[in-house]
Amino acid sequence: MSYPVQRVTLITLGVRNLAQARRFYEALGWVPSEATPAVVFFQMPGMALGLFGLKDLAEDQGVKEVTLGTGAITLAQNFATEADVDAAFAAALAAGAKAVKPPSRAHWGGYSGYWADLDGHVWEVARNPFWPLDPDGSLHLPKGA
Amino acid sequence: MSYPVQRVTLITLGVRNLAQARRFYEALGWVPSEATPAVVFFQMPGMALGLFGLKDLAEDQGVKEVTLGTGAITLAQNFATEADVDAAFAAALAAGAKAVKPPSRAHWGGYSGYWADLDGHVWEVARNPFWPLDPDGSLHLPKGA
Repeated sequence: MSYPVQRVTLITLGVRNLAQARRFYEALGWVPSEATPAVVFFQMPGMALGLFGLKDLAEDQGVKEVTLGTGAITLAQNFATEADVDAAFAAALAAGAKAVKPPSRAHWGGYSGYWADLDGHVWEVARNPFWPLDPDGSLHLPKGA
Repeated sequence: MSYPVQRVTLITLGVRNLAQARRFYEALGWVPSEATPAVVFFQMPGMALGLFGLKDLAEDQGVKEVTLGTGAITLAQNFATEADVDAAFAAALAAGAKAVKPPSRAHWGGYSGYWADLDGHVWEVARNPFWPLDPDGSLHLPKGA
């Protein structure tokens, strides 16, 4: 195995209605790289996000069913400014997301809000002053701590 | 917002027991970049994976509780060969993961298995012959389809 162990190639979100879920992410400005009647893939920096029907996902996993929207996994997008966080949060609501927590100052020194997509998958939008981002929006954690 | 819209900066996994969850990922060969009594962060190519206590995660989201292990979000690692997939699956079980589906040939032409971590978060290990990987293990989706 020549790849680093610490990596994720693909995040797959199980969805109730694939066409509806696709429209939601497209309303956020996302553009699919590949879309079939069964699956939609979006390119991200170095990895992909996939939308996949719940039944297909359960079948793929060889399990009876998978259930939705617990928020025990969250996906975060970080931004450079609090205004950018507010704008991203507003754009999500405008696309049909549910507000979980409006952006506010957090005890750890940042600024963060949460929204849930149509299937309850929870995204965080945040500014973390201790985590500068690369020009492409990717993250390299500070050394040590 | 100068960053691309299609990106994830951080994946946070809610966990019951942070020390135990950290030991599990360390047993898989992962090395934390930052670890406090409250949170553990692992550097991945261009992004991070975080482990965070369930109560802290619920508090952070401003919700009463978040529940675990539905598998409606899956995190995938792709590999170059089926033998690499088998080795990664075996390494996960050796670290204490639960087998969800042993690696097998998939109808879409690849080879894939699923395991669940101590908190039920579901990972896929896969070889997708249509998705060549970069030397650092990152993914760039083929154009069109």
